[in-house]
Amino acid sequence: MGLLDKINSPNDLRKLSQKQLDGLAEEIRQEMIEVVAVNGGHLASNLGVVELTIALHRVFHCPEDKIVWDVGHQSYVHKLLTNRKEQFRTIRRFHGMAGFPKREESVYDCFDTGHSSTSISAAFGFAKARDMAKQDHHVIAVIGDGAMSGGMAYEALNDAGNSKSNLIVVLNDNEMFISQNVGAMSSYLNKIRTAPIYDKRKKDFENFLKHIPGIGSSVAKAAGKAKDSIKYFLVPGMLFEELGFTYLGPVNGHDIPALEKVFNQAKRKKGPVLVHVLTCKGKGYEPARKNPDIFHGVGPFCIETGEMNKKAAPPTYTQVFGETVCKLAENDEKIVAVTAAMGSGTGLSGFGKKYPDRFFDVGIAEQHAVTFGAALALAGFKPVVSMYSTFYQRAYDQVLHDICLQNAKVVLAVDRAGIVGEDGPTHHGIFDISFLRAIPNLTIMAPKDENELRHMLYTAFTFENPVAVRYPRSAGFGVNMDDQLQILEKGKAELLREGKDITLIGFGPVVYMCLAAAAELEQKGIRAGVINLRYINPIDSELILAQANRTGRILTIEDHILPGGMGSAVLELLAGEGNHDVKVRRIGYDNYVEHGKIPELHQAYGITPFKIIQAAEDMLNSGE
Amino acid sequence: MGLLDKINSPNDLRKLSQKQLDGLAEEIRQEMIEVVAVNGGHLASNLGVVELTIALHRVFHCPEDKIVWDVGHQSYVHKLLTNRKEQFRTIRRFHGMAGFPKREESVYDCFDTGHSSTSISAAFGFAKARDMAKQDHHVIAVIGDGAMSGGMAYEALNDAGNSKSNLIVVLNDNEMFISQNVGAMSSYLNKIRTAPIYDKRKKDFENFLKHIPGIGSSVAKAAGKAKDSIKYFLVPGMLFEELGFTYLGPVNGHDIPALEKVFNQAKRKKGPVLVHVLTCKGKGYEPARKNPDIFHGVGPFCIETGEMNKKAAPPTYTQVFGETVCKLAENDEKIVAVTAAMGSGTGLSGFGKKYPDRFFDVGIAEQHAVTFGAALALAGFKPVVSMYSTFYQRAYDQVLHDICLQNAKVVLAVDRAGIVGEDGPTHHGIFDISFLRAIPNLTIMAPKDENELRHMLYTAFTFENPVAVRYPRSAGFGVNMDDQLQILEKGKAELLREGKDITLIGFGPVVYMCLAAAAELEQKGIRAGVINLRYINPIDSELILAQANRTGRILTIEDHILPGGMGSAVLELLAGEGNHDVKVRRIGYDNYVEHGKIPELHQAYGITPFKIIQAAEDMLNSGE
Repeated sequence: MGLLDKINSPNDLRKLSQKQLDGLAEEIRQEMIEVVAVNGGHLASNLGVVELTIALHRVFHCPEDKIVWDVGHQSYVHKLLTNRKEQFRTIRRFHGMAGFPKREESVYDCFDTGHSSTSISAAFGFAKARDMAKQDHHVIAVIGDGAMSGGMAYEALNDAGNSKSNLIVVLNDNEMFISQNVGAMSSYLNKIRTAPIYDKRKKDFENFLKHIPGIGSSVAKAAGKAKDSIKYFLVPGMLFEELGFTYLGPVNGHDIPALEKVFNQAKRKKGPVLVHVLTCKGKGYEPARKNPDIFHGVGPFCIETGEMNKKAAPPTYTQVFGETVCKLAENDEKIVAVTAAMGSGTGLSGFGKKYPDRFFDVGIAEQHAVTFGAALALAGFKPVVSMYSTFYQRAYDQVLHDICLQNAKVVLAVDRAGIVGEDGPTHHGIFDISFLRAIPNLTIMAPKDENELRHMLYTAFTFENPVAVRYPRSAGFGVNMDDQLQILEKGKAELLREGKDITLIGFGPVVYMCLAAAAELEQKGIRAGVINLRYINPIDSELILAQANRTGRILTIEDHILPGGMGSAVLELLAGEGNHDVKVRRIGYDNYVEHGKIPELHQAYGITPFKIIQAAEDMLNSGE
Repeated sequence: MGLLDKINSPNDLRKLSQKQLDGLAEEIRQEMIEVVAVNGGHLASNLGVVELTIALHRVFHCPEDKIVWDVGHQSYVHKLLTNRKEQFRTIRRFHGMAGFPKREESVYDCFDTGHSSTSISAAFGFAKARDMAKQDHHVIAVIGDGAMSGGMAYEALNDAGNSKSNLIVVLNDNEMFISQNVGAMSSYLNKIRTAPIYDKRKKDFENFLKHIPGIGSSVAKAAGKAKDSIKYFLVPGMLFEELGFTYLGPVNGHDIPALEKVFNQAKRKKGPVLVHVLTCKGKGYEPARKNPDIFHGVGPFCIETGEMNKKAAPPTYTQVFGETVCKLAENDEKIVAVTAAMGSGTGLSGFGKKYPDRFFDVGIAEQHAVTFGAALALAGFKPVVSMYSTFYQRAYDQVLHDICLQNAKVVLAVDRAGIVGEDGPTHHGIFDISFLRAIPNLTIMAPKDENELRHMLYTAFTFENPVAVRYPRSAGFGVNMDDQLQILEKGKAELLREGKDITLIGFGPVVYMCLAAAAELEQKGIRAGVINLRYINPIDSELILAQANRTGRILTIEDHILPGGMGSAVLELLAGEGNHDVKVRRIGYDNYVEHGKIPELHQAYGITPFKIIQAAEDMLNSGE
């Protein structure tokens, strides 16, 4: 029986010796490597926080004390230590354990996370609630250096730093976040890391002070300031001190006794405290330590070699996007690319290498990315801003004002549109149509396959208004790639199949589901037309109305939530044209979508040819 | 002929003597006071930046050099100096000059603003574009200390601070932003303001250094750090220095020669520079200086007394909201309120005074406000988060994840929903239904009048899910206020008038337009029913379907953009119920809405009883 098997709650951690703790850390790493090698998941970050998590749970008493995990992809160790080791092997699987903290799953998860930089806000909320309720437990936010570049983290530091509330922010500084170090904060932290050892410097300074003779009165007047100055000399984290936090650290994040010491110190301090912990991403598994970028979020891999189990598959939409933008940029030096810590995730690594001066990774800072892109466009460049659908939710106001109200000619690449699989509800891109569709001046496109994506990107750069192109997180269909890129006429849909009884309208790769369903319906004697919508804003009213009148029935399908989605746009079009005799049904999601593999989820939530067939038959049978 | 009349472009400023500049400043203040006293507008902030703007335009050469005005409500002086003094008297009027920078209006306005904290991102975008285009002009962002609490400003500082690009950020520190000082940054700036004078301290310190004997080698090793330490002693803005900016200041923002000196210094520096300017909001007009909060954004007022020209009017929705929350809080100590620098704007000042420990103004930090509120709810409190509709655009992701995905029982007060008048397109609240409606778990309500608002707030706190209550920026109708607050059954609309030929559905105060139209239609022999919708999510399918079947025609009206709005929800309902024989038309906006008085805009954009009547008649006449 291993040590991990003996840990049924964090309390059990306090019974172990230091040597046992080291063994436990080893077991936890082994368990995580084995499970992630099969299920995929976030490995490097979790390997980095093993000792940190053990120390936190030894010093603090959860669930009374509350730990908020920023982003939450580094919560695997926490899950293993809080009575969930049995379920751990189901992590990220459909109906299995979530890859992020989930209140539904455990009392030890006090706040659900998924997106970056929310933890300090949430922790400060818990702290204020505790104060009002006159309780006295501890609240801890654990946040990475990458998440610190998100403005929301600063908003919370700024608010909490001015309060007297007890709050502990653990800054997990792993020298790099998802892909690379960007931003001044990152340089600043690096400066602290590489500074001479704190204790040594302190001693030197004390020695130095001893040699100073009596100081003149004029200086004495500035004594308050001088005290600060000395503090600055001694304390590396002055920036946080200026924001009202007591800074403790930096401390070695793989040294459990040192961590416990500093956490106990933090416990005793009054007011907000920031504990600066230095960790190594991927620690204990060489392939992950060497390539923390690749092992940030991985699919299944071979433990021995660290190589990914890649099936020979068609290129992903992301890859096709990256290659196409690179190619377009060859012939147009005005094309530049902006992303927010999603350089490799959105397929722009190649672009960044080829055009380092035209590539801008601004850090985890979606709002800034979008407004920065707007200014580039207004200054005459042709920026593509590339982010995941779910992260555009962070920059909605900036798309609305800084891009669309000013009609700045920016191409918004909306990657990971539709469900994304194992990362679950916080990462599915199922809201973008509804929040983008209401924005004036913004054209929205979605390609039916990877070849069409290339034409759409080519087309998007020719428009005199901003354009969003949404495409999913998955491999393409392996369709033929046209040699020549061409403009897809604005606002024109593609009629793929003429119908008589019903018209199926798809937006994005679901168009192929429509084709499959139409073929099967034909066998049943139902003649279904298929429209590849291609455009919303403008929508192809001519074709839709013609087919609506011809078939009398429309069935829309989208990899998106129903309210305000593509089907809703079709309803609005028909009502706007005074066309009320057409029967319309819509297929899409009507709630948040859980985690699991994309095909499993499509099956479970009815985004399938079968569902289309069923709905079409039902419409015909019910006399609609 | 005054001095202002001689200024046809910023170039003319350079011809004036210091004495003339003082006279010009006086004239500009006079002009602004006179115009704002009639048109309303942002006065205190503009009075504070007269000398700052003059100095900027003397040192920098616009439009080649680019100045981005954060928020933009302080751009009046800039407008007066850039060939727009003729139009200035039309400011904020329908079809007149905008109250914010507008690229359409002038080449001197390089970036449209309206919401806070975007200027550094935009300016950095311009700076990078300049570098890529191998140009060499200057780019300046002018940002207030309040806007500095917005996370986006930090995201941009963090990105720009790590670059080598020339960029000048002018921090206009007026000791307070819209309402009060909140946050650690604000305390930090205050510390700088009140520190001993820079030059004096520098001299003292140099003197002090002279008296130090030879320093031992161990200290010499720490020389690099020591240099920083000395710098910290001398430079008050070390926090910005740590973020990679050269800090200059603080400088008196009403001393034109001092300003010019520091701007010229900034011009010569390489890399990002932050110039810290101290100004006095409301300077030169005693009532505004004394009450910068009231004179931040004002309606027409009397110049002599500074008193507002208030007509006796029914209480505003905002006031009713504030009073109701106060009243509810009396009987329920779990009720707490959160806002983001909109305390007085959202009517919560009274609450803040009465319950200082239960009131949280987090600064201009909408994202943080929402997530902070979510945590308060999860910890057992009943928070109402109160912000303007347009600012929820800044916190969309947080509403989606931190509140609704976790089903945190927060009441979202969505003030200024619908058009807001003179502040124009960046401030109209015409997108909230479309972006909130797609969010699962979130109930959306809108009261037809101020009395119903009270019942809705009372009701909202009883629900087991998050609720958004949207209401406009305007006076109520002066309806009777019920003594007893009551629960409005969830998902139930109110049938105000039974129809036969058509059903009018309104959401919010437009319901009264429906009633007026129905009365007039009756005169014309058309019997129109009226539904006060009250709820979206859930929507009252029973009543709508019954009335739809009864009348065969539905006309929806909303003070909101059409795509994804309330009418769209009605279309979805009807299609979802397989009900396709009903004719539906929708009234609302189909584009951004310009600035002007609310009734003017309603008239111009067709949100009127007349338009309802016209549409209803047209539906009947066209045989729909």
